[in-house]
Amino acid sequence: MPELRKDPITGRWVIISTDRSKRPSDFSREPERKMTSVCPFCPGNEEKTPPEILAYRVNGTGPNKPGWNVRVVPNKFPALGIEGAMDKRGEGLFDRMNGIGAHEVIIETPEHREKMAEYTEKRLEDVLWAFRDRMLDLKKDRRFRYILIFKNQGEAAGASLEHPHSQLIALPIVPKRVQEEVDGSKQYFNMKERCIYCDIIQQETDSKVRIVDKNDGFVTLEPYAPRFPFETWVLPLTHESAFENAPSHLYENLAMAMKNLLTRVDKVLDTPPYNFVIHTSPLNEASNDYYHWHLEMMPKLTKVAGFEWGTGFYINPTPPEEAAHFLREA
Amino acid sequence: MPELRKDPITGRWVIISTDRSKRPSDFSREPERKMTSVCPFCPGNEEKTPPEILAYRVNGTGPNKPGWNVRVVPNKFPALGIEGAMDKRGEGLFDRMNGIGAHEVIIETPEHREKMAEYTEKRLEDVLWAFRDRMLDLKKDRRFRYILIFKNQGEAAGASLEHPHSQLIALPIVPKRVQEEVDGSKQYFNMKERCIYCDIIQQETDSKVRIVDKNDGFVTLEPYAPRFPFETWVLPLTHESAFENAPSHLYENLAMAMKNLLTRVDKVLDTPPYNFVIHTSPLNEASNDYYHWHLEMMPKLTKVAGFEWGTGFYINPTPPEEAAHFLREA
Repeated sequence: MPELRKDPITGRWVIISTDRSKRPSDFSREPERKMTSVCPFCPGNEEKTPPEILAYRVNGTGPNKPGWNVRVVPNKFPALGIEGAMDKRGEGLFDRMNGIGAHEVIIETPEHREKMAEYTEKRLEDVLWAFRDRMLDLKKDRRFRYILIFKNQGEAAGASLEHPHSQLIALPIVPKRVQEEVDGSKQYFNMKERCIYCDIIQQETDSKVRIVDKNDGFVTLEPYAPRFPFETWVLPLTHESAFENAPSHLYENLAMAMKNLLTRVDKVLDTPPYNFVIHTSPLNEASNDYYHWHLEMMPKLTKVAGFEWGTGFYINPTPPEEAAHFLREA
Repeated sequence: MPELRKDPITGRWVIISTDRSKRPSDFSREPERKMTSVCPFCPGNEEKTPPEILAYRVNGTGPNKPGWNVRVVPNKFPALGIEGAMDKRGEGLFDRMNGIGAHEVIIETPEHREKMAEYTEKRLEDVLWAFRDRMLDLKKDRRFRYILIFKNQGEAAGASLEHPHSQLIALPIVPKRVQEEVDGSKQYFNMKERCIYCDIIQQETDSKVRIVDKNDGFVTLEPYAPRFPFETWVLPLTHESAFENAPSHLYENLAMAMKNLLTRVDKVLDTPPYNFVIHTSPLNEASNDYYHWHLEMMPKLTKVAGFEWGTGFYINPTPPEEAAHFLREA
């Protein structure tokens, strides 16, 4: 009998198939096309990107020259523009504003072929510090309400360039799903005076069935009502509402947790395309007791049918307990 | 300058790219794989599906034999099971229930290769009547809260069989996005004592920029804040909250509107994969003044990156005014 499960934070129900439960080898994969043009993110091609905003460099190397370890540049084809006024306006019953925002690319490594799971922990930590540095800088711009950090790995997951990179988008609005999480966790806090994520961590750590891994700072688990097979969350063990406010030692722990997770995922699912997104508090309520920042990781294993977008109703062919088992044993 | 637009019903903001606006020929397509195994939906293979629930037949032909024009069967691999009790239970702070529901397949034509845009209006109308007949029957089951009708056309849109078909899922819960629409339109009604969809139809009909087509019963338009390029809605001109309650002549009008839309879409976008979903009121509030049933159609043109699922925040590379222009001129 399949099961209907409700995400306790957003209230979304999902179908978890049990009869036709999919194992890791059941997911078919489309071959990646090789991208052959000159890579604008490789060392030596620095002039092919807009001038860098931030770079962690070998001492003595100059900006927009080789010698960097991590490099942040504006997206050459930004989804939003940094200059100008918001110009909020109605159009009859509709609402619009100018697409003001920042769209940056974090080039994670000089090595074109290196996978994130292969980074040294130091490199991964540097990438996380770059996220943080950029967030702290962009937070000063009062037009922004939210900073979105995400990675699309592989063509099927939406990456248009092969060279390892992640992206940052600063927005004058709060994305809908994040707002739902914030609202849901606020509602829970009003009822219980506790953070719902802290409660979930407690319950999951006790039951262990959906836990993948744990270190001094983070727990990696499969959520109870995941929309996608092998959807995985990485949560700080101690309550903290904003990514950029985490104490320094946590970035080291997070780098370890991510490397651990990606290594397991690559092993179990044969280096799949994937996405991750950092979910953190909106900028105007960065420090609070109800929201708990975390990282959500989704391997791209299934085609999402339009009815799932059309309705917000998802059918997940792999129970999270089984996914956790596979990842734990890897 | 890109634009941020807010969907007035659900409150979701989307980015509408204008600088790098995509024209119909800019979307790249993956080749469809030919599916070669024996088709269980073709006439003569009736025994390869579970016994039929409904069929519109040539007089004198018996059930589960050739001679049908439209045939409805249970899905052989249902996402939900029809038998059993709900067994709603908590698991600590989580909620679950048994996956009780109906999952049916509407085989729309005996012709394996016929596309929906090529159907006679009579055939399309018959398909709509089959939707309605099944809805009216399943409504009697008090366990169900919502009946979802959708079509996945083409492999990239999630279809696993080539033979033209649509699907019906009866659910003991209301899908999240539908619930958001119902809540949003209820809120608007409480403020204005008017249906928000009726107001949108009025404003759009006046401004004309996002209108694709109109007949006696329906208007076809591009929504103001679409998540996907060429996302299109077909709405009844007269307020009606539930698909299955529409007066009979409207099914003829809807068949005309759908044929018209699909013909335009196939012409402009070169017969793309697509999905449509009927959005109708939840069963326990089928007749009301605030919600307006409609059909949402989404050609599958772009890869949805994980950050869009992860955040509910969408970047749409084609302004709806341009999409409407292309479809109108086709």
